[in-house]
Amino acid sequence: MALPNSPSVSINGERLLERIAELAQIGEIEGTKGCSRLAFTDGDRDGRDLVVTWMRDLGLTVTVDAVGNVVASTNSDGASGAVMAGSHIDTVGTGGRYDGNLGVLAGLEVIEATLAAGIELARPLAVAFFSNEEGSRYPPDMMGSLAYVGGMSVEAVLEVEGSDGTVVGEELDRIGYRGPGPCPGAVPHAFVELHIEQGPVLDNEGIQIGVVEGVQGISWTELTLIGQSNHAGTTPMTLRRDPMRVAAEIAVASRSIATEIGGSQVATVGSLTLHPNLVNVIPASATMTVDLRNTDEALLQLAEQKLESLVASIAESEGVEVESRSLARFEPVEFDDRVVGQIDRLARQKGLSTKRMPSGAGHDAQMMARVCPTGMIFVPSLDGVSHNPSEHTEPQDLVAGAQLLADTLIALTEVTW
Amino acid sequence: MALPNSPSVSINGERLLERIAELAQIGEIEGTKGCSRLAFTDGDRDGRDLVVTWMRDLGLTVTVDAVGNVVASTNSDGASGAVMAGSHIDTVGTGGRYDGNLGVLAGLEVIEATLAAGIELARPLAVAFFSNEEGSRYPPDMMGSLAYVGGMSVEAVLEVEGSDGTVVGEELDRIGYRGPGPCPGAVPHAFVELHIEQGPVLDNEGIQIGVVEGVQGISWTELTLIGQSNHAGTTPMTLRRDPMRVAAEIAVASRSIATEIGGSQVATVGSLTLHPNLVNVIPASATMTVDLRNTDEALLQLAEQKLESLVASIAESEGVEVESRSLARFEPVEFDDRVVGQIDRLARQKGLSTKRMPSGAGHDAQMMARVCPTGMIFVPSLDGVSHNPSEHTEPQDLVAGAQLLADTLIALTEVTW
Repeated sequence: MALPNSPSVSINGERLLERIAELAQIGEIEGTKGCSRLAFTDGDRDGRDLVVTWMRDLGLTVTVDAVGNVVASTNSDGASGAVMAGSHIDTVGTGGRYDGNLGVLAGLEVIEATLAAGIELARPLAVAFFSNEEGSRYPPDMMGSLAYVGGMSVEAVLEVEGSDGTVVGEELDRIGYRGPGPCPGAVPHAFVELHIEQGPVLDNEGIQIGVVEGVQGISWTELTLIGQSNHAGTTPMTLRRDPMRVAAEIAVASRSIATEIGGSQVATVGSLTLHPNLVNVIPASATMTVDLRNTDEALLQLAEQKLESLVASIAESEGVEVESRSLARFEPVEFDDRVVGQIDRLARQKGLSTKRMPSGAGHDAQMMARVCPTGMIFVPSLDGVSHNPSEHTEPQDLVAGAQLLADTLIALTEVTW
Repeated sequence: MALPNSPSVSINGERLLERIAELAQIGEIEGTKGCSRLAFTDGDRDGRDLVVTWMRDLGLTVTVDAVGNVVASTNSDGASGAVMAGSHIDTVGTGGRYDGNLGVLAGLEVIEATLAAGIELARPLAVAFFSNEEGSRYPPDMMGSLAYVGGMSVEAVLEVEGSDGTVVGEELDRIGYRGPGPCPGAVPHAFVELHIEQGPVLDNEGIQIGVVEGVQGISWTELTLIGQSNHAGTTPMTLRRDPMRVAAEIAVASRSIATEIGGSQVATVGSLTLHPNLVNVIPASATMTVDLRNTDEALLQLAEQKLESLVASIAESEGVEVESRSLARFEPVEFDDRVVGQIDRLARQKGLSTKRMPSGAGHDAQMMARVCPTGMIFVPSLDGVSHNPSEHTEPQDLVAGAQLLADTLIALTEVTW
């Protein structure tokens, strides 16, 4: 779709890296590269103020909507019909400096470089940062982008109470980011989010660019297994109703399910709590979680069915009762083939190695995909570490990702759906 | 060995049940049948005082040794060469009324019935209650009987610090049970302990008497499994180093080891703790325990070897590091064939159903077995429940066990080793 004589822009990598470093000083976690800017805290406000200053310095039209989402556009009428980049600048309690921030600051850099180059584009460009993507202080995560696309009402957002007892509406007022802009917001022509992978795949395989095809569907189940607590010495194996044995076999079966289904299927037992949890007592109960993810809804359902059936048969064989509760269930999101293809082609034209992959984590882009053609670009995370001050992506990878974002956004200004 | 014209004594079952109920009022846990008399507390002192009063009322010679063990003998010279019954009267924090108390009060009843019958025996009878069998407040369990047979010095016992910061010697002084009697104590001719099973086997099979052949050897291992914490969504199965998967396979393997070895072999994973224990995070580490028990030392070693080898191969396959630590290791104890055989024969002569079985729990009798021919009699525990206020044994089973204890003790007065 990109025409041979498309305009092109070279971003200023040094400026991007400097802005990332400057923003990371706000909420800096001493002695680390990381920072802490939980949504709607003073740190978040200071970060917002800095980025908004940079937006205004470029002469962009900045709108703040009723839930604090900030959109800057090259068009004085706002972002409607624009090609938009975006992500978030809030962090988890002890976060890194790249998660979210990279996508926002790279979008800003693309606009600055485009303006500096004096290039005329067929559509305006825009860059957004969405409120409370992490969800660490207020549920749900991706709150701002969910509201932006109409998936959660402004009233509902403003009433959310946080883990510290504060309320979103009051905190938004306090930090001055409950704006007059409409929410749901302007529908862009397309949306692209550059983000660190937050997983080990690219780093492990030595690949520069992840071309994200979609976001995995998520199925979280909590299983409470109720057996019979007994003395570990006096109870013969044949008379046991041991919930730990059942939990162990479920965990082993979860791994097998993921391996059998293959592809993007993953399965994790991250949490398991025994009662009374003593060396010489067969537990009375075990509470465990199983996290299943797949990019394919049918396969995710297959995994759920296999798990359910195995749980029932394993528990029955031990005389253990099972209570099952769904903690979360999201269908997979598929990004737009045309946007995904564009990203892949442009990357390969630049000689970058690419891998088509799903996102295992949630992102604002999955909400934007509800209203416009959307894609995501991943750059490698060293050892897959994220949500941790030691989160790291090599500078050349950050710059390569931002340049690819520039190429993609500009190409998308010329595409008609 | 019991001669056809052996003397015999009928115990008074009602008196025994009344004494059990009266002792249970001390430290009674309101609204339950259970009681709480942790070692060397005021409750323990009051329980001791009551039993000692009963002992003195029978005109027995009562000695209290330097660690608080109490022995009452029909012989004014003490228990040397006597046929001794005994157990303990301390309880766990929320215990039942039978655990320990039954063996002491049944021994007392045998002596009272024998004295009342005016029967001349070839040897004196004695009944003992040993200090701190439970080990709930001060380690180790079976402390008093261990010291009685010289397995732990008086000095070492007196210096033990409890979970509440108190010290055994000071508490013994406080409750007035640091006595002048020698420790190690007098060596009896034989020792027999009547005890509730604390397991479900007799109740499950509808058998009246467990003829205890020995006490299982115990091997407790703590395994710390160190993997790589990662995002549950973004980390492909093939790149995981998941300590929970390793823990689960170890738990499943432990069950298999017990089943393969069979016999008295049991294996329990009673404790497992994950960090950080979150639904969407592959754990960084798992700490688990494996409790292996067998009456046969060679087979217990085989179980340990199988476990060690499986842990190593499972952990290696996942790239998880293992730190292994022994928490406890006791060899099995075998009771004296002649005493065990005597109990079995006498029970069957009375028309009681019997089962030869190991004890999965530790008992004072296993310490006494170091110094004299020793045996144990089990009576059924309803549903195998013990160390719980709802611990229950039917009255007729209590009385049948006590009568069998009487028959056994009297028969043993006539035996020469």
